[in-house]
Amino acid sequence: MSIKISSHFDAGAIEVVSTAQPSQINLNLRKDSNADFMQWFYFRLQGARDEACTLRILNAGAATYPSGWEGYRAVASYDREEWFRVDTEYDGKVLTIKHTPTEDSVYYAYFEPYSWERHLSLLGRAAYSPQVRIEDLGNTVDGRDLNMLVIGDEAAEQKVWVIARQHPGESMAEWLVEGMLDALLDVANPIARKILQKAVLYVVPNMNPDGSVRGNLRTNAAGANLNREWMTPSLETSPEVFYVKNKIHETGCDLFLDIHGDEGLPYNFVAGSEMLQGFTEQQMAEQNAFVQSFVAASPDFQTKFGYPTDKYYEDVLKLASKYVGHHFKCTSLTLELPFKDNADMPDDVVGWDGDRSAKLGEAMLQPILQHLNRNQVKTK
Amino acid sequence: MSIKISSHFDAGAIEVVSTAQPSQINLNLRKDSNADFMQWFYFRLQGARDEACTLRILNAGAATYPSGWEGYRAVASYDREEWFRVDTEYDGKVLTIKHTPTEDSVYYAYFEPYSWERHLSLLGRAAYSPQVRIEDLGNTVDGRDLNMLVIGDEAAEQKVWVIARQHPGESMAEWLVEGMLDALLDVANPIARKILQKAVLYVVPNMNPDGSVRGNLRTNAAGANLNREWMTPSLETSPEVFYVKNKIHETGCDLFLDIHGDEGLPYNFVAGSEMLQGFTEQQMAEQNAFVQSFVAASPDFQTKFGYPTDKYYEDVLKLASKYVGHHFKCTSLTLELPFKDNADMPDDVVGWDGDRSAKLGEAMLQPILQHLNRNQVKTK
Amino acid sequence: MSIKISSHFDAGAIEVVSTAQPSQINLNLRKDSNADFMQWFYFRLQGARDEACTLRILNAGAATYPSGWEGYRAVASYDREEWFRVDTEYDGKVLTIKHTPTEDSVYYAYFEPYSWERHLSLLGRAAYSPQVRIEDLGNTVDGRDLNMLVIGDEAAEQKVWVIARQHPGESMAEWLVEGMLDALLDVANPIARKILQKAVLYVVPNMNPDGSVRGNLRTNAAGANLNREWMTPSLETSPEVFYVKNKIHETGCDLFLDIHGDEGLPYNFVAGSEMLQGFTEQQMAEQNAFVQSFVAASPDFQTKFGYPTDKYYEDVLKLASKYVGHHFKCTSLTLELPFKDNADMPDDVVGWDGDRSAKLGEAMLQPILQHLNRNQVKTK
Amino acid sequence: MSIKISSHFDAGAIEVVSTAQPSQINLNLRKDSNADFMQWFYFRLQGARDEACTLRILNAGAATYPSGWEGYRAVASYDREEWFRVDTEYDGKVLTIKHTPTEDSVYYAYFEPYSWERHLSLLGRAAYSPQVRIEDLGNTVDGRDLNMLVIGDEAAEQKVWVIARQHPGESMAEWLVEGMLDALLDVANPIARKILQKAVLYVVPNMNPDGSVRGNLRTNAAGANLNREWMTPSLETSPEVFYVKNKIHETGCDLFLDIHGDEGLPYNFVAGSEMLQGFTEQQMAEQNAFVQSFVAASPDFQTKFGYPTDKYYEDVLKLASKYVGHHFKCTSLTLELPFKDNADMPDDVVGWDGDRSAKLGEAMLQPILQHLNRNQVKTK
Ligand SMILES: [Ca+2]
Ligand SMILES: [Ca+2]
Ligand SMILES: [Ca+2]
Ligand SMILES: [Ca+2]
Repeated sequence: MSIKISSHFDAGAIEVVSTAQPSQINLNLRKDSNADFMQWFYFRLQGARDEACTLRILNAGAATYPSGWEGYRAVASYDREEWFRVDTEYDGKVLTIKHTPTEDSVYYAYFEPYSWERHLSLLGRAAYSPQVRIEDLGNTVDGRDLNMLVIGDEAAEQKVWVIARQHPGESMAEWLVEGMLDALLDVANPIARKILQKAVLYVVPNMNPDGSVRGNLRTNAAGANLNREWMTPSLETSPEVFYVKNKIHETGCDLFLDIHGDEGLPYNFVAGSEMLQGFTEQQMAEQNAFVQSFVAASPDFQTKFGYPTDKYYEDVLKLASKYVGHHFKCTSLTLELPFKDNADMPDDVVGWDGDRSAKLGEAMLQPILQHLNRNQVKTK
Repeated sequence: MSIKISSHFDAGAIEVVSTAQPSQINLNLRKDSNADFMQWFYFRLQGARDEACTLRILNAGAATYPSGWEGYRAVASYDREEWFRVDTEYDGKVLTIKHTPTEDSVYYAYFEPYSWERHLSLLGRAAYSPQVRIEDLGNTVDGRDLNMLVIGDEAAEQKVWVIARQHPGESMAEWLVEGMLDALLDVANPIARKILQKAVLYVVPNMNPDGSVRGNLRTNAAGANLNREWMTPSLETSPEVFYVKNKIHETGCDLFLDIHGDEGLPYNFVAGSEMLQGFTEQQMAEQNAFVQSFVAASPDFQTKFGYPTDKYYEDVLKLASKYVGHHFKCTSLTLELPFKDNADMPDDVVGWDGDRSAKLGEAMLQPILQHLNRNQVKTK
Repeated sequence: MSIKISSHFDAGAIEVVSTAQPSQINLNLRKDSNADFMQWFYFRLQGARDEACTLRILNAGAATYPSGWEGYRAVASYDREEWFRVDTEYDGKVLTIKHTPTEDSVYYAYFEPYSWERHLSLLGRAAYSPQVRIEDLGNTVDGRDLNMLVIGDEAAEQKVWVIARQHPGESMAEWLVEGMLDALLDVANPIARKILQKAVLYVVPNMNPDGSVRGNLRTNAAGANLNREWMTPSLETSPEVFYVKNKIHETGCDLFLDIHGDEGLPYNFVAGSEMLQGFTEQQMAEQNAFVQSFVAASPDFQTKFGYPTDKYYEDVLKLASKYVGHHFKCTSLTLELPFKDNADMPDDVVGWDGDRSAKLGEAMLQPILQHLNRNQVKTK
Repeated sequence: MSIKISSHFDAGAIEVVSTAQPSQINLNLRKDSNADFMQWFYFRLQGARDEACTLRILNAGAATYPSGWEGYRAVASYDREEWFRVDTEYDGKVLTIKHTPTEDSVYYAYFEPYSWERHLSLLGRAAYSPQVRIEDLGNTVDGRDLNMLVIGDEAAEQKVWVIARQHPGESMAEWLVEGMLDALLDVANPIARKILQKAVLYVVPNMNPDGSVRGNLRTNAAGANLNREWMTPSLETSPEVFYVKNKIHETGCDLFLDIHGDEGLPYNFVAGSEMLQGFTEQQMAEQNAFVQSFVAASPDFQTKFGYPTDKYYEDVLKLASKYVGHHFKCTSLTLELPFKDNADMPDDVVGWDGDRSAKLGEAMLQPILQHLNRNQVKTK
């Protein structure tokens, strides 16, 4: 059997240039739907068991975030359950993966994928909790269901919003939500129980279903970068934001968390709202308190590395967390998880992965609760 | 939240006519890709928790097998793991499902689905066995991988072929294969161990990937009914048969099993090759012996109900099992599982389902082994 | 840390002679409670990680069945879940185990143990089935509960009895029962469902609780070999048989299966009742039919190797299966499982073990059902 | 079948007075081995399915902690996996349990038990971690192995000691240790990874194996209350303390945690070392910091309710945590878990249980890490 590269499955994305022999597999990233972004890849290699394979992604240097390839190692899996890192090099132009698969069929990806089937299973499982209501917000561009979980009593005084995966290639964002939900719905978890005494949570585990299934890095089916659509979302090209923005105006918001992945920085960190006009000292104190609580809750979260404050200065209200922070004057953060690893605690085998993302999601309940505790005192 | 019907997911298929209120949900079956068959449905209902829903499939009477609706009950699930039967009536024209869902989101289907993600996971899991080789046979019309498992030593004297799901809506066929594979690869299973001492197995768990994902009943993406393509398969419209037929001519065949579902009969049964020209008494004895062994192995399998021998008299060699039986003069059977239930041992809660299909697949190893034992003696 | 041998846990049994160094660990078998039998051992070794250990059982030649050591390999485990075989030699006097443990703590045993805690869990799990009633038959000598499962409708015409582990060191007998019960209570298992339409089963998973916990090979706490007590059991020294014998006279019996392990023969086989006075041709035919059904159901069961018919000629009615066969004129068999392996299908890693025993228990449902089918016809 | 009460199994403990009928089951607590303590009970009831049972523990008023019965509800289980609370009343003399079991066999206990078999399985599972060494410290009075887990690099600068279940009836203490160990050995847990970069842990999951198996509340087999033996433990009557005390003097200690259950208070809390002579302000600050970190980590832990500081003034150095705090001048705490429930977050179904204890053990890693971080800075 000769070598075969394929990607016709959920989130699959690659272009095959040539597969003459195992040592000369040449590939290209392909662009997001109706857009010029490109970086996500996910494909299957067959026919190379026990062969020393060299897979070259020729156009890696033209990716959206070339710095993402510095120190990066691709993930691989035989069964799509267990993912591990493989040798990867970047010479400024070409990304070269070297791996000798021990099975007939092996998958390579930019990061551990999170499929639409798993998404639907997550909703199905969560729905059994008496605390959970599943709400449909509307249709995506391709016609998929855009769902939200409402957790707890909607009459609760405080409203917490968590949205994830506006950028669909950042699958770690949905792994984090899965970990957070599993902890939140565990009746023996005392932090979860306290949170649900104080607040209702609105959770959108996947803001970009179409981009996720299509294997995009940053856009939806219409080519829109959803995290630049919050000022003027449209039903035609960014209905995902349109519906969520409307809903948040309907419910109000006391804490907003938008979960992302960062291609470059090998750390977990947040970007806050301190650049917003009219951001008060009180808001700064609250934001800092949240961040400090998170540091205490998980050594995987840190504050040393992150974005410069001015990163998004222009048109900043196009971004979800800035928009919400501005309108609701609440703590509003973008949480960034790494594609690479947490350089403070690197793991040679798996790097940063779905499991560690899920644990960070569980740990995030602690700063959420402490935020609610402080806010409760304040509002009394 | 108002009522919503959606089907944009793996194997989803329905047309919405109107959803004015829970008691008046009107739907239509939709046709297979490029073909006139229609019977499979799979959709999600949101927004009707605790509402007494009446879902009417208006064009059920025009389905391919209207007799399939006699005594039929639809399956439903909240989490797509646990499927159960719901009240269903057929008046000769309209199929009416009555159900009060207890969750915000519920799925209804013709039969417990088997997704492409699960298919890939099955391959991934099986591949870890040192007995298994995964082979790619080529691309489907839509460009998916058509995979085969080769189990055991290819130098073995006897060759057993098992193919499933030529008709993609017959998902029970792949459930059966999953059960068979799990048993076959269990090192503590003595029947499996004996089989692998005597034979190599060629197993195609899903002959029709495109039709499966598209939610077709009987055809592939090009509209071809694969089980009528065995005389003259084409690379353009029935590559799935083209590749498998070639491979079987390459390997030879001593036992052929083609797994199907039958819309009408509430029984498990086989259709044999006795109508073939030149079918010998020896072949008849072998076929009967296989069938009797299967009866002994599983009370879910029976011989009283089945097809009349002349069902496929014309152009019979277009069918997989007839074609193979004719060319290789081996025992060659079509195994039919019910969509409804096994009327000999009905289960009010789940009817016939994936789990019972899987158990039948495990039980099928016993007649396979006994066939190999007899054949071994004969060929010595 | 120096070397330590300990056995103060469920079924633990050994005597320490000396433990000067890893290469010179000298041990003795210890006798059953109040009896001279000895062969079972089960102990823990600590302090020898990565050391090449030589464990010598000095008095092995004086064991009850010295032939049991021919071709025998001891089992070992680090976690008491996964058991594997280790190098073992027998020179006619001393049994020598050579093993280099890779953990600080390792267990060695004659066969994979089945603890009293697991026994109670098995009862607890089975009890949830609506088909099951747990009945207490009385107290053992030490005061433990002697329990029976009644499975199915007690008004059923046919009564099937299965008892196991009269000889407590034959733990494979209870593994077999666990496998049989799990299959029997699986609502998707068609053989189980058919059986429960025709018969009620009386199952005693452990006839000898005290001997099991004490780590005996053959006797109860009072030193009685229960399978020699069926003529005149006593409340004082063999209450376990006393209670079960009374119960069987109360219920009647149409099929009796007594599960044992055999120290010497590396095969699964049955000993029948053909030596009984008045044993009819009809009984012989029924017994043979059962045996042939069993052969078809599992290649791990065979008829070539077994006991000579006259093995128990004298006082034969002291044995459970002979006693019952004589009194109830029904098919009554002793099923023997190996301590060593099934030489027809040896497994280098685990030999014969709990998992394979459980699978044989599942397979045994098939001859049981076919016996019931034949018997049903006969009694009509 | 008539009513039967039995307790001949791991940790079983009760005396039967009379069992005339389900509504009149009279029982007595029995004393610890060689001691006058009594409070623990654990027994099985058979023969009362669907009967409204009234079980009266006649001598409850003479128990060691009669206040333990105020607001207390007994736990029950059918399978010894799922435990739930049942109606229980205390009139100052008699403890009355009212329950209608829905199965033939049901167990009642003072608290969810933790068996010796589970203890050995916990050790076996943990041992697979490359971070873990299992060390045998010596024999208990009855001859069981007293084991310690050494986790991490013994050359680490900081030494953390965790011991549990000096009082064997306080089974929640070992549930806590199980939760802590599972988290500690999870390679994806960032707190665990940080801890193991800084410290080695010495963990004794069960200080009192004999008392645990015998079903004692407070003493070992010799009748010794181990938490009063730390001044002058003896090889004859308190070898468990003798060995652990010696080992701790060998390793040193920077943080000591002794896990207990409290019969009366429905809260989780710690008792500190502030009553010790020479206890410094620095020590007070460290102890307070640990406690505050724990409060942040788990809402199940609190500081409002606890013991008065002078509770153990006399002979205080007989207690483990006081002895260690005094000798090593380190933070040294007794952690108390409730038998009843956490009154801050009561759970009607299970009360306080093994699962919640395990979660508290996982949460405890956070104050441990923060203690290590502070201590590290201090010692630099
Ligand atoms: Ca992003
Ligand atoms: Ca068909
Ligand atoms: Ca025996
Ligand atoms: Ca205590």
